[in-house]
Amino acid sequence: MIMHYSVNTIPVGVLGASGYAGRELCTLVARHPRFQLAFATANEQRGQRMRVGGRDMTFAAPDDVRLSDAAVVFSALPHGASLPWVDRAAAAGAVVVDLSSDLRPGQGGAGQSKRAPVPYGMPELGASTRAAIRGASLVANPGCYPTSILLALAPLQASGLIAPGATIIANSASGVSGAGNSPKRELLFAEVADDYRAYGVGNTHRHLHEMRATLQTLGSDADLVFTPHLLPVARGILSTITVPLVEPLADPLALFRRAYAGEPFIEIAEEQPTLRDVARRNVVRISATMIAGTRQPTLLVTSAIDNLMKGAAGQAIQNANLMCGIDECAGLPA
Amino acid sequence: MIMHYSVNTIPVGVLGASGYAGRELCTLVARHPRFQLAFATANEQRGQRMRVGGRDMTFAAPDDVRLSDAAVVFSALPHGASLPWVDRAAAAGAVVVDLSSDLRPGQGGAGQSKRAPVPYGMPELGASTRAAIRGASLVANPGCYPTSILLALAPLQASGLIAPGATIIANSASGVSGAGNSPKRELLFAEVADDYRAYGVGNTHRHLHEMRATLQTLGSDADLVFTPHLLPVARGILSTITVPLVEPLADPLALFRRAYAGEPFIEIAEEQPTLRDVARRNVVRISATMIAGTRQPTLLVTSAIDNLMKGAAGQAIQNANLMCGIDECAGLPA
Amino acid sequence: MIMHYSVNTIPVGVLGASGYAGRELCTLVARHPRFQLAFATANEQRGQRMRVGGRDMTFAAPDDVRLSDAAVVFSALPHGASLPWVDRAAAAGAVVVDLSSDLRPGQGGAGQSKRAPVPYGMPELGASTRAAIRGASLVANPGCYPTSILLALAPLQASGLIAPGATIIANSASGVSGAGNSPKRELLFAEVADDYRAYGVGNTHRHLHEMRATLQTLGSDADLVFTPHLLPVARGILSTITVPLVEPLADPLALFRRAYAGEPFIEIAEEQPTLRDVARRNVVRISATMIAGTRQPTLLVTSAIDNLMKGAAGQAIQNANLMCGIDECAGLPA
Amino acid sequence: MIMHYSVNTIPVGVLGASGYAGRELCTLVARHPRFQLAFATANEQRGQRMRVGGRDMTFAAPDDVRLSDAAVVFSALPHGASLPWVDRAAAAGAVVVDLSSDLRPGQGGAGQSKRAPVPYGMPELGASTRAAIRGASLVANPGCYPTSILLALAPLQASGLIAPGATIIANSASGVSGAGNSPKRELLFAEVADDYRAYGVGNTHRHLHEMRATLQTLGSDADLVFTPHLLPVARGILSTITVPLVEPLADPLALFRRAYAGEPFIEIAEEQPTLRDVARRNVVRISATMIAGTRQPTLLVTSAIDNLMKGAAGQAIQNANLMCGIDECAGLPA
Repeated sequence: MIMHYSVNTIPVGVLGASGYAGRELCTLVARHPRFQLAFATANEQRGQRMRVGGRDMTFAAPDDVRLSDAAVVFSALPHGASLPWVDRAAAAGAVVVDLSSDLRPGQGGAGQSKRAPVPYGMPELGASTRAAIRGASLVANPGCYPTSILLALAPLQASGLIAPGATIIANSASGVSGAGNSPKRELLFAEVADDYRAYGVGNTHRHLHEMRATLQTLGSDADLVFTPHLLPVARGILSTITVPLVEPLADPLALFRRAYAGEPFIEIAEEQPTLRDVARRNVVRISATMIAGTRQPTLLVTSAIDNLMKGAAGQAIQNANLMCGIDECAGLPA
Repeated sequence: MIMHYSVNTIPVGVLGASGYAGRELCTLVARHPRFQLAFATANEQRGQRMRVGGRDMTFAAPDDVRLSDAAVVFSALPHGASLPWVDRAAAAGAVVVDLSSDLRPGQGGAGQSKRAPVPYGMPELGASTRAAIRGASLVANPGCYPTSILLALAPLQASGLIAPGATIIANSASGVSGAGNSPKRELLFAEVADDYRAYGVGNTHRHLHEMRATLQTLGSDADLVFTPHLLPVARGILSTITVPLVEPLADPLALFRRAYAGEPFIEIAEEQPTLRDVARRNVVRISATMIAGTRQPTLLVTSAIDNLMKGAAGQAIQNANLMCGIDECAGLPA
Repeated sequence: MIMHYSVNTIPVGVLGASGYAGRELCTLVARHPRFQLAFATANEQRGQRMRVGGRDMTFAAPDDVRLSDAAVVFSALPHGASLPWVDRAAAAGAVVVDLSSDLRPGQGGAGQSKRAPVPYGMPELGASTRAAIRGASLVANPGCYPTSILLALAPLQASGLIAPGATIIANSASGVSGAGNSPKRELLFAEVADDYRAYGVGNTHRHLHEMRATLQTLGSDADLVFTPHLLPVARGILSTITVPLVEPLADPLALFRRAYAGEPFIEIAEEQPTLRDVARRNVVRISATMIAGTRQPTLLVTSAIDNLMKGAAGQAIQNANLMCGIDECAGLPA
Repeated sequence: MIMHYSVNTIPVGVLGASGYAGRELCTLVARHPRFQLAFATANEQRGQRMRVGGRDMTFAAPDDVRLSDAAVVFSALPHGASLPWVDRAAAAGAVVVDLSSDLRPGQGGAGQSKRAPVPYGMPELGASTRAAIRGASLVANPGCYPTSILLALAPLQASGLIAPGATIIANSASGVSGAGNSPKRELLFAEVADDYRAYGVGNTHRHLHEMRATLQTLGSDADLVFTPHLLPVARGILSTITVPLVEPLADPLALFRRAYAGEPFIEIAEEQPTLRDVARRNVVRISATMIAGTRQPTLLVTSAIDNLMKGAAGQAIQNANLMCGIDECAGLPA
């Protein structure tokens, strides 16, 4: 099949399109002013139709698509399975955003050890990160929990406000879509409804390594305790983060506002951010409050994202926009 | 009306019976082998019928009941409004359990400052607390959050394991029934569903004082950071608590099992406790895990209760059982 | 305050903007390519800020706005309170869409009896209805249940397929936002969660009159049994409608496809329509299936809408678009 | 293993104990005053522990249990797989309650055609049904939808009130546990939450045959249109049933009260029955209202059950109580 695109259209492929992040990507591509979906693969669901952005599309088998048909390829394949396809897409000449953890910092897998690190796709970490993404042909899209936590910590670290040797406590609660849509008994409605629980306790969640490595890159020597929880909602993450400071902060919101001035996808709020505030939007919404009555000056930062948007597909589009040299906000509901 | 009770029956009154805790109390009384409901008051809903434990009852106006008709009175009246009725019921000769915060430790209100402190109704805090409840005619029933947090901390404090000058971080998530059933816009289904948020941030929640005062009584000098959250579920509280320790604990579950050996309403679990584990049961379910990879030895304790049972009505029945000299477990689903 | 609009901009006012339909209207206006919000009133919440479409706005007191500032006025005021404001807005020269039931067919109130009937704002009922809306300066926006039920029946009635003297059974289930956001105990999360119930049974719901009157206008002599139910979801209505036919229908979907060919906001689906299919979209999604094994030929029609979109604010925008002579789809997510 | 039971204890086995109905059965057996769990099988989850009624138990492999260890055997095996095990348990001398559809009326499968029909375990259908259950050693436990619908229709049929040749419309909405706990994508929380849909439309649901056959046995010539729906709740069924009558009924509740006088598990209510009314209770709660304004006299009957209790495990215990000659209510929360 020969596809014709208008001059301004950028053909896009989505690998692993049947998962929640993959579907969200297809929807965002369908609404994007410049991107156009060239193919969307899903191995198990090959041949099945999906409705995306008001149009019907069909999942292709991975081996049936020509990767060179796409100028931009998003891989939403599972962790571990993504890397070979990322390499194939890159070899075919595509700009690639990898939503899996395979190439993120701190993974240290066998496949990764031989490779040069790729830019970490969190543009708001700072000017050098955004520049690196702009110039890259391959970017590792951050995890959902790291997005909500690292963007809440970066301004504090940059300001030298985190107490030396501090232990930062990050409690996160995530909607169920974060666990994917493979059928598992513990994710059934009748199991999850009316319930709430911690999981991955004791610093055993994979995202911890990604956060630690990034914090070290930012120059932090803090320890991190990360405890995720499973919420009975479909989408959204709220992180509640306690940070020991070197001294009390008179106006913590002002610090965040300064640090993120001009950022289109970061909102600093006086009121506590909620999952609803950020649903279906590519934003991080952050608030910060000094804790009263403790000897150790302590800041509470709360941070909300939609795990499928700023936590996955939305941030991937944002990165692809930067890599393609087009408006960073193109096609993203803010 | 003259009511006749069998020899073994203890007549019980519930003040403020139309709220969630009050209704739960009426249901528990209806199923209790020794208690029998003499009256249940509800000022605004006076004259309305309620179905409790399979029988119909009618809310009385507070001024229409004779407090001396009850040998045991539970006050589930709002904070601030409870104290005068507690005094009246005590003057009428009843044994009284006050579910409001009016007489709890750390409240320091005008009314309370002139009074001798009353026992804090958390029997599992230790032998002396249970003995004090047994001998009391008036007990302050603990708050829901304090129940879930203090019972998770008490064994650590008793063992001298908490690091000196530590900052303990307690993040709790509660079902909506904890906010009562007065109609408020922010508690409507269409507002709460699909959402999650922190509230009372910065150590501003009333329950903090109750916890701090109790921790001090237990000999702790730790600071406490307490952040409650609102869950889109009807009932249940999960607390996720991070505790700096003096040294790593090889087997934290063993410590908790020893501390609570023989306690009928405390469960120590290897798996993470969930809201479902404790729904409609008068138990605290606790797990504990050492955090990997931090310089400061840190323990993560998670603790689940049903906020209306062990967090309110169930614990009140447990206290009344002790005060009446009957089986502590009578009438309580464990 | 003098507001300046670009040549192509149409200033819009929303009366009763703090309810769910009113807020949805403000959001749609904010995203509309031609409309611009001139004022939004809310009596009880006057002076409060609201975030709409990414911008902050403030609720005005109804008496503080100049109705003539708006070329289009939407009234989302409560039933009964709307009519005087509709008249005032019309007198000020605005085109008016009334979302209340005050001017809908079958209401027969005192205020209405003296008036000429106004067009019923359901464009898909047929060419004459759409033409009437186009030429009107005042339109009665349909109720949510009638929208889901009448659009499912109209093609059957137009084709003469409904059995003479038939009793049509319409069971509808609605999300809680349909009951508005005034604080009521029975709408609290802890009351609605995990529950489901019928209400307004026995043909006592106000929307019945609106449906009966419209069916009569369409030439139907059928009786209608309408039973609404309350779902534990925030938004959406599904109607399940049983229709006795004069004869079996070989391809009911084809009938609906023909009847609604070219309609941008009606979807005919082989699969059962679901609330998710239509969430946040201005569409009715309909399926139809012949019932097997009954002597009386019987058709089952299912119809899903978002009660706040096609069931209220979305349809109101659609009507205003027609009344203003602009693209019927402008500003509407389909 | 040799098990010793007290004189009054009846050993009970549960086949297929890992599903929702099987677990509920184990819990009810654990709380039953006379029954004691001898074994609980679950093929795929063999060896896994389950917490039931406050005690830990382990799922056995079906081939590892001695069926003769149980005096009562409940089969909660899947439809199709149950029959051979039912026969084996009967051959081993046990009284058997089969919760699958294999032996219910109207199934007409190959296995069943050669067999004498077994009593249908719905005691409230009438004195002869209850007597048949009492004398049986094998009973077919009714389906959940049929329980909610047939008990709503039986008094009308017995009174000769249903119009000759009537079409009865039964719309039912069920919680997700009715679909079992095998992992399926469409039952995941993130798929079911915020959604609602019809399924099995057009009279294609298996339970239709069971209802039709039973209605015929009761002497009815009515047609039945049955449309089930999937609710975003864990448990509960509400059926909304429209019945054409021979004449208007002045007091429909009185009819139901008379028909079900003395029945411990049937509640007739003036207010609309809700899922919450019946949660975790072995009851059917029914209301009935004449429809206003239709030429054909029409009655609306609404009926709520807990699908896992009166719709499955509770009714199975009720049947076993009858078969064992003990109190019909033993061990059942009413």
